[in-house]
Amino acid sequence: MLVIIAKDTPAADLVRLTVSLENRGLRVTTVTAEDATLLYLAGETWRIDGEGLKALPYVVDVQRLTSPYPLAARSAKEAGTVVHVGKAAIGRDFCLLAGPCAAESAEQMAAIASSVARSGAAVLRGGAFKPRTSPYTFQGLGAEGLSLLMEAGRKAGLPVVSEVTDVRDLSLFEDVDMVQVGARNMQNFALLREVAAFGKPVLLKRGMGATIEELLQSAEYLLRYGNGNVVLCERGIRTFAGQMRATLDVGAVPALKQATHLPVIVDPSHAAGRSDYVTPLALAAVAAGADGLMVEVHNDPASALSDGAQALDLAGFAALAERVQKLLSALR
Amino acid sequence: MLVIIAKDTPAADLVRLTVSLENRGLRVTTVTAEDATLLYLAGETWRIDGEGLKALPYVVDVQRLTSPYPLAARSAKEAGTVVHVGKAAIGRDFCLLAGPCAAESAEQMAAIASSVARSGAAVLRGGAFKPRTSPYTFQGLGAEGLSLLMEAGRKAGLPVVSEVTDVRDLSLFEDVDMVQVGARNMQNFALLREVAAFGKPVLLKRGMGATIEELLQSAEYLLRYGNGNVVLCERGIRTFAGQMRATLDVGAVPALKQATHLPVIVDPSHAAGRSDYVTPLALAAVAAGADGLMVEVHNDPASALSDGAQALDLAGFAALAERVQKLLSALR
Amino acid sequence: MLVIIAKDTPAADLVRLTVSLENRGLRVTTVTAEDATLLYLAGETWRIDGEGLKALPYVVDVQRLTSPYPLAARSAKEAGTVVHVGKAAIGRDFCLLAGPCAAESAEQMAAIASSVARSGAAVLRGGAFKPRTSPYTFQGLGAEGLSLLMEAGRKAGLPVVSEVTDVRDLSLFEDVDMVQVGARNMQNFALLREVAAFGKPVLLKRGMGATIEELLQSAEYLLRYGNGNVVLCERGIRTFAGQMRATLDVGAVPALKQATHLPVIVDPSHAAGRSDYVTPLALAAVAAGADGLMVEVHNDPASALSDGAQALDLAGFAALAERVQKLLSALR
Amino acid sequence: MLVIIAKDTPAADLVRLTVSLENRGLRVTTVTAEDATLLYLAGETWRIDGEGLKALPYVVDVQRLTSPYPLAARSAKEAGTVVHVGKAAIGRDFCLLAGPCAAESAEQMAAIASSVARSGAAVLRGGAFKPRTSPYTFQGLGAEGLSLLMEAGRKAGLPVVSEVTDVRDLSLFEDVDMVQVGARNMQNFALLREVAAFGKPVLLKRGMGATIEELLQSAEYLLRYGNGNVVLCERGIRTFAGQMRATLDVGAVPALKQATHLPVIVDPSHAAGRSDYVTPLALAAVAAGADGLMVEVHNDPASALSDGAQALDLAGFAALAERVQKLLSALR
Repeated sequence: MLVIIAKDTPAADLVRLTVSLENRGLRVTTVTAEDATLLYLAGETWRIDGEGLKALPYVVDVQRLTSPYPLAARSAKEAGTVVHVGKAAIGRDFCLLAGPCAAESAEQMAAIASSVARSGAAVLRGGAFKPRTSPYTFQGLGAEGLSLLMEAGRKAGLPVVSEVTDVRDLSLFEDVDMVQVGARNMQNFALLREVAAFGKPVLLKRGMGATIEELLQSAEYLLRYGNGNVVLCERGIRTFAGQMRATLDVGAVPALKQATHLPVIVDPSHAAGRSDYVTPLALAAVAAGADGLMVEVHNDPASALSDGAQALDLAGFAALAERVQKLLSALR
Repeated sequence: MLVIIAKDTPAADLVRLTVSLENRGLRVTTVTAEDATLLYLAGETWRIDGEGLKALPYVVDVQRLTSPYPLAARSAKEAGTVVHVGKAAIGRDFCLLAGPCAAESAEQMAAIASSVARSGAAVLRGGAFKPRTSPYTFQGLGAEGLSLLMEAGRKAGLPVVSEVTDVRDLSLFEDVDMVQVGARNMQNFALLREVAAFGKPVLLKRGMGATIEELLQSAEYLLRYGNGNVVLCERGIRTFAGQMRATLDVGAVPALKQATHLPVIVDPSHAAGRSDYVTPLALAAVAAGADGLMVEVHNDPASALSDGAQALDLAGFAALAERVQKLLSALR
Repeated sequence: MLVIIAKDTPAADLVRLTVSLENRGLRVTTVTAEDATLLYLAGETWRIDGEGLKALPYVVDVQRLTSPYPLAARSAKEAGTVVHVGKAAIGRDFCLLAGPCAAESAEQMAAIASSVARSGAAVLRGGAFKPRTSPYTFQGLGAEGLSLLMEAGRKAGLPVVSEVTDVRDLSLFEDVDMVQVGARNMQNFALLREVAAFGKPVLLKRGMGATIEELLQSAEYLLRYGNGNVVLCERGIRTFAGQMRATLDVGAVPALKQATHLPVIVDPSHAAGRSDYVTPLALAAVAAGADGLMVEVHNDPASALSDGAQALDLAGFAALAERVQKLLSALR
Repeated sequence: MLVIIAKDTPAADLVRLTVSLENRGLRVTTVTAEDATLLYLAGETWRIDGEGLKALPYVVDVQRLTSPYPLAARSAKEAGTVVHVGKAAIGRDFCLLAGPCAAESAEQMAAIASSVARSGAAVLRGGAFKPRTSPYTFQGLGAEGLSLLMEAGRKAGLPVVSEVTDVRDLSLFEDVDMVQVGARNMQNFALLREVAAFGKPVLLKRGMGATIEELLQSAEYLLRYGNGNVVLCERGIRTFAGQMRATLDVGAVPALKQATHLPVIVDPSHAAGRSDYVTPLALAAVAAGADGLMVEVHNDPASALSDGAQALDLAGFAALAERVQKLLSALR
């Protein structure tokens, strides 16, 4: 970490700062240059709150040279992490995660599960606890929804992933194969700690207003609290460009693949907001190097109780899955 | 609500849609125009998931004409809501909420509390459960921090506000006068429901990537679940303009004052990120019509365990409070 | 166009508005509903300044139902426009446009031109008039730069494209095959009118802070002033996500392909800002349905006088071109 | 400038880089630290294209320590620049610039000019060349519009400011007191050079997608090409927060006042987009420390040919001007 100190700072201030940093266990090297004085800090700098150092009136800037997420950083594990969910190996094989926005009924779940399984999906998704922006819209079927999801997955031979929104509901997720932390909860640190302790693989979605660095720091929470089975998911960010529900930040894929050893998938559905935009976004994500896709699929989108506009129907998903396979072959 | 249907839609599809909407309790008026067919819906349209209607291939667009947050909307209570926190009346009197980012020790809290009280603060803030982006930085003193805060408030004669980050910690907030839901938890709906039921006044911060509408819908959750004592807080949003920690959306103040009867305050500290930017942002917020300010204040910012860079020291806050009073006089 | 009028508007105001709209040649249909009065306008509504109508205190909202860019809209030409640049047919064949950020010398241009031609590029790019953000950095070789570019193109058998930044320089572009309007000049309407009149094919880059609609309206300027040979180019937008030089809005590709008949290409170089990010972004753009790519290529990036960080070297471009071909085969 | 070099870089590469930097006239100090090698560069570093240095594979990062806009930087002129426009002294006295979006007729201009003069405006604005996003809307009256503006200003005793959009129109601005470069032309460097040479005071508007740094670099163009009479203007930026036409970045005011000696004003009208939002934004700007405001005013907004929705009527502007005076008194 580099601390850039203003040019005419009194020696006493410099000494006091240096001593306090050394007291925190860092090794400090001082370099006097023309326009500034530089303090080069070595040691466990990720513990240091860089913003706090800037409180000092004579500190011009603070630059990190090592990672603030040492466990998640690529350098911690050059090989790359593989997260096993049932038989799926995310990070080793390209994986399709598919299913409806919400589990609505046994018939709906059965129809969708068998179809997406035939189309090559590796994991079945389905929401039981929906984080709905408005308190007046369908909130999901709760525990019953989880049962519907798990039953459908069992019959179709697919592991399941579902979103947990409340730490107190975690006990209901015992038989769920992968737990999802939604975009709106990416920095719900209380939830992250519990989900880490719960021990199951985690699908961590990037917040709509979150930077890549914040996503990685939330992943760092999970790793630090003992759970290394984390899959990151880009799903579109908030920008001024409003032609779709969110702006898919496809550049996040190569940026993340460089920064971390954790697998990175993309949810093109929440970015697209409309079913006819899902496929181009999905293919773009695959071409950019994503380890997988999570796609919303419904057997009857027009009747969906939530987010029907962006769901692919069964034939649409089958077609997408086929195109994805061709693309993967061409990319090797 | 207005549903705009594509020009050559088969009559059968139109009939089916109309019937399903009427079955949901809405009154449907059909208007055939040159370029489109318009369905005008009256009734409890806030229950309708507009995005879901767009799933239909022949729906061109959906326009809301009435509010999706009927309880929070200004029309629900033209007079304006006053939220009482101790002796403070937010929404009636301009209120200053002040205190450190985190409660660190009894001496620190006592020094800050007595000083800000003398400077005219109406509420004392202090964090005990800090939502830190990195798992390696100071997380707050937890229950002990709350005790320090409440003791300091008691001695200085000020009510206190503190952030809750985990639903299971709410029981510790029995003697806290106002509960804060942080920006990162603005859409933690599980937390919102619990905080509403808890019954204390709520300070709801706008998420960094949240629209005004989403903020109001989160407020709607609180009102709908029985708690109408909600104060909204703008604290800066995520944009490409990175010269400060966040971009203060001062326009949110007049926009919110028009849209809702709930009081609106501003936190200039988290937008500024640096103490020398706090005052101009604070004064701008007051001039824009805010009902109050929440400012981070520390007796020794350079030693602060978190966010020291943006804290005003005691003299700085006293000066700001004086300038705010002068401004308020000029604005009447 | 739909004008939504507030519920209790005096009849006299409504009559006055209706008459003034009819005087502008529009046909007005009035619909009285429960919560509002709707004025449905038919005719040449693209002439109407919707924002101006909102000036009226009783106008709640204005919704366009037909296109504000009638010449550029897909409906004007379902077949899709093909823009011929030399032998390249953009919009019919997938086209690679490649070359250095700036033409620096005859040797540099010759080396790059022959190499990219062998790699399958259809058009050679090279800047002579660089819009440099800082007045202190390399501004391009001007007229000499154009000569170097055209000579290199001639020898390699490739048509050339170069950016014009000043209307008074257009006369120098007589022998340039395609004229580029840069992102910073997307709304330089004086330049657009001249470039349209100049008659050559135009490469119109999307501004970093421009919406899709604004890009299409700038294209509309060109079409309206007589030049229909326009290729649109997405090159990354300004967002809070700063991990790359700009955020590539890959969703703009399918959105534009739906909205307009004009071809759409992508410049992954300016979004990437770093050479190792160019390929994933390029492949993502191809997968999303782009009609072409414009890539910065340099024979010796470390010595480039501008934007060297994002340039691919000759081998890198050859590799990319090959991967693009494979991808295109897989996508058919 | 600090160049951070990766840890195990071969000595030969380091030597080659150091020599080439010294050949560019810089003084290089090398510091070997644990995690990196640092090259500290002193001299005319603003000439260096930092992005270009990052092309080198072993360069981890480049940090500027001195200003890339040495002429505009506050350090160049601690006192602060005063720009004289007629009798107005922007940067010394708080100035109101007011007038219609476009000059439409002699009667309109006369009514507005005399009224705003009485209300205390120091400069009359009025557009003759409108940069309209759509080619179908009112483009301004051109040379005739300028005449109307100048005549009205003369009669009311006010200097005038108007926007130039085309370098070839500059000759028409001989008797205009101040030339405006619009937001969309902030990086039209050809126009900036001509406007600088033209010699009149310049009002430079920040682009909707431009950073503060880019605004200052465009100002640097003007200063470098000989024109130091530059006033900067914040007018709202592009963000995801769409409740107003643009998001007023009020934080830009204190940030700019720190960074540069040039005066900084705010245009609340283009951010507000609606007349009832103009006043709160205007007052916020004043409280944040702006040196002036530019406000759109029309005698009959409902009939305005452009941007009527955001114009204040004559009484509205008089009221605003009075409130501004009170605010300024309170702020001293």
